Amino acid sequence: MANNIVTFTTDFGTSDHYVGAMKGVILRLNPEAKIVDISNSVNSFDILDGALTIAQTYQFFPADTIHMVIVDPGVGTARRPLLVTTEKHKFIAPDNGVLSLVYEREERLSVRHITSEHYFLSPISQTFHGRDIFAPCAGWLSKGVETSKFGEEVTDFARFAAPKPKPASPMVMKGVILKADKFGNLITNLTAKEVPAMFQTPAPPFKIIVNNKEITTMRAAYALGMHNEVFAIVGSMGYLEIASNRGSAKALLGADRGSEIGIMIDGVTYAPPAAAAPATPPAAAATT
Amino acid sequence: MANNIVTFTTDFGTSDHYVGAMKGVILRLNPEAKIVDISNSVNSFDILDGALTIAQTYQFFPADTIHMVIVDPGVGTARRPLLVTTEKHKFIAPDNGVLSLVYEREERLSVRHITSEHYFLSPISQTFHGRDIFAPCAGWLSKGVETSKFGEEVTDFARFAAPKPKPASPMVMKGVILKADKFGNLITNLTAKEVPAMFQTPAPPFKIIVNNKEITTMRAAYALGMHNEVFAIVGSMGYLEIASNRGSAKALLGADRGSEIGIMIDGVTYAPPAAAAPATPPAAAATT
Amino acid sequence: MANNIVTFTTDFGTSDHYVGAMKGVILRLNPEAKIVDISNSVNSFDILDGALTIAQTYQFFPADTIHMVIVDPGVGTARRPLLVTTEKHKFIAPDNGVLSLVYEREERLSVRHITSEHYFLSPISQTFHGRDIFAPCAGWLSKGVETSKFGEEVTDFARFAAPKPKPASPMVMKGVILKADKFGNLITNLTAKEVPAMFQTPAPPFKIIVNNKEITTMRAAYALGMHNEVFAIVGSMGYLEIASNRGSAKALLGADRGSEIGIMIDGVTYAPPAAAAPATPPAAAATT
Repeated sequence: MANNIVTFTTDFGTSDHYVGAMKGVILRLNPEAKIVDISNSVNSFDILDGALTIAQTYQFFPADTIHMVIVDPGVGTARRPLLVTTEKHKFIAPDNGVLSLVYEREERLSVRHITSEHYFLSPISQTFHGRDIFAPCAGWLSKGVETSKFGEEVTDFARFAAPKPKPASPMVMKGVILKADKFGNLITNLTAKEVPAMFQTPAPPFKIIVNNKEITTMRAAYALGMHNEVFAIVGSMGYLEIASNRGSAKALLGADRGSEIGIMIDGVTYAPPAAAAPATPPAAAATT
Repeated sequence: MANNIVTFTTDFGTSDHYVGAMKGVILRLNPEAKIVDISNSVNSFDILDGALTIAQTYQFFPADTIHMVIVDPGVGTARRPLLVTTEKHKFIAPDNGVLSLVYEREERLSVRHITSEHYFLSPISQTFHGRDIFAPCAGWLSKGVETSKFGEEVTDFARFAAPKPKPASPMVMKGVILKADKFGNLITNLTAKEVPAMFQTPAPPFKIIVNNKEITTMRAAYALGMHNEVFAIVGSMGYLEIASNRGSAKALLGADRGSEIGIMIDGVTYAPPAAAAPATPPAAAATT
Repeated sequence: MANNIVTFTTDFGTSDHYVGAMKGVILRLNPEAKIVDISNSVNSFDILDGALTIAQTYQFFPADTIHMVIVDPGVGTARRPLLVTTEKHKFIAPDNGVLSLVYEREERLSVRHITSEHYFLSPISQTFHGRDIFAPCAGWLSKGVETSKFGEEVTDFARFAAPKPKPASPMVMKGVILKADKFGNLITNLTAKEVPAMFQTPAPPFKIIVNNKEITTMRAAYALGMHNEVFAIVGSMGYLEIASNRGSAKALLGADRGSEIGIMIDGVTYAPPAAAAPATPPAAAATT
């Protein structure tokens, strides 16, 4: 029944022994496990980056896949290790919000506080729970140990709302760059929900301001951009992106993760911020 | 019969979700697939770098391996997705020449334009065909779907000639640095075909000019070089390389991919460029 | 019986074809092999870095795992290819000391000089034995070929002592930074053997000097550090580490691999260096 797949989404990097040690721990418990690296190059300590990475990938994996999501700056403190079960997937992660975007998408959710220490390595370091707690639990889980054996369900788990766009005026929707990818594409937090017109073809005239620079063209494909032109494009993650053809929008604009962005769309007005507040989650990441 | 191996050669990097999403798509279709990363760090948009990477690796894999080669700056435009079958291997790639060096080596070749949309994800983004088209086709292919099911054969596929050395004068053969590797070794495009004397032991006296610097020694192994000496060496890719012992020839010479190189070999003369032209492919990459 | 796992610890990087070619060679010989990347980003030519990486990981893998450890600046010279068998593991590596920390930990050790050329690729390059010698031997080994078939046992294999701390005065123990990890944590060579008081809770008052900066606090977990504070912490590798909470101690101190460190601990004195000499291995790496 189980597919034996265990994925890794971590900020441990690939230059050190960390990821290798975790793989060893899992394979010693279950030599049949199939470990798949999603990314071990999440920005160090960056819970939002980890949250985005797993949220863009887990749904493509087969049912019963076990996803380890270890971005864990609070290792060794009271933050809890969690085992999360959704309709089709399992997740092992620290309770710091790194699964927030999974929680957002999944209706049925069981969140357990992992407390069964007999599944842990011994002794446990206070600096590498990836190896000492999370990996052995993933190993046991992949062998078919039932989720209920790992600990009790909890409901007060940490979660944050990803930064959401909000109107700054009737004319301007403000957003933020969620991340710059390897190509220098800037992924904004604007989706079809906040700016539906930008996701239609053709998009109406618009103006995006990032770092005091204006973007006024939309392209249907990267390769349709002019040389050194920075344009908007509907990205594969469901967000509006800012890109350049065979170039880096990040470099051309001097913008990066966290940069603010404003968009004005011809013929589109927004309710003033005050009125919109109840329906808009907080822009800043906040734990429960 | 099938070995279930699917290799990845891409420029998607390892910091983002792209490679993870593609792996998920394949594994959801075929949990038995064995995904092997060749490199996901091909230079962004660099078709020649991708072509070199796959050309140096595919032949070592077992028969029936499926190679995904996704360096795809034209994603979303009319460039076609291809399924290429050689005597022993299968390749899935965009039709932009990234398989040119495979075409060069293989005598028997079937190239199909992938058109069977029922194998694609739905909806299809215009920015990430790696996930939406190429990966699911690799997944189905690894499950044993026949190549003929994916689309019709075509013959007008894009290919380019890798930059080839050519005589600049009766005394001087001109070449180019194809790439600098992780160690700073500079891989030239000079092979035993153009400069056979350099591949004999011992090589005759010679002079290589790169970036106004002279190289006049040949070493049989990296460790035989003097401290900070830059020397020529017969590389493992079949190309003449320029290297340094425990150091970076790239840094020492200030040379990199694309840098021109001239070589003069004692007692060797070349036919003038004009006469040699018919036998020499164009130096610059050109599509058919 | 065999678990089919072959791990990679190399300095080949992930941008080139090297690792992919090695994987292909192994899989062509044994399509059932399970290749697991520990790290291919060992510092170029850095034997100590490779030694640390494998020493921190191999023990977590299941019995009968084959570990390829290829950091091989001497490729093409007379340095021998080795097949090392310990009680539970097998290692394939060049004879340059990269397994020294494995030798240090393992009581029962068989070290063979690989000479059976019929297991090698042909022809053999002088620049890439990872592909031409080490990988095919790993492939055959994973298929169950007995270790005795690869060559005779030797006893004069290269090994070095990792840099060990030693007293610089009755008050000061001197050590060195072994490596900086991806987070900027500085791993020192101080263990519970040389400074046991630092591994107790609570640690006595102490002062560590690195790069003319003083560290006087110890934290039980990274997240307990103040903003921009640099502190000592008991690391997961068994070494004392110097770290910062969500920051880089490396950047904050301007220290890195090789930086010297001095530690004074309240109430602790050391025998003078001369008297301690017999029990202390040489600080500098030296081959036999």
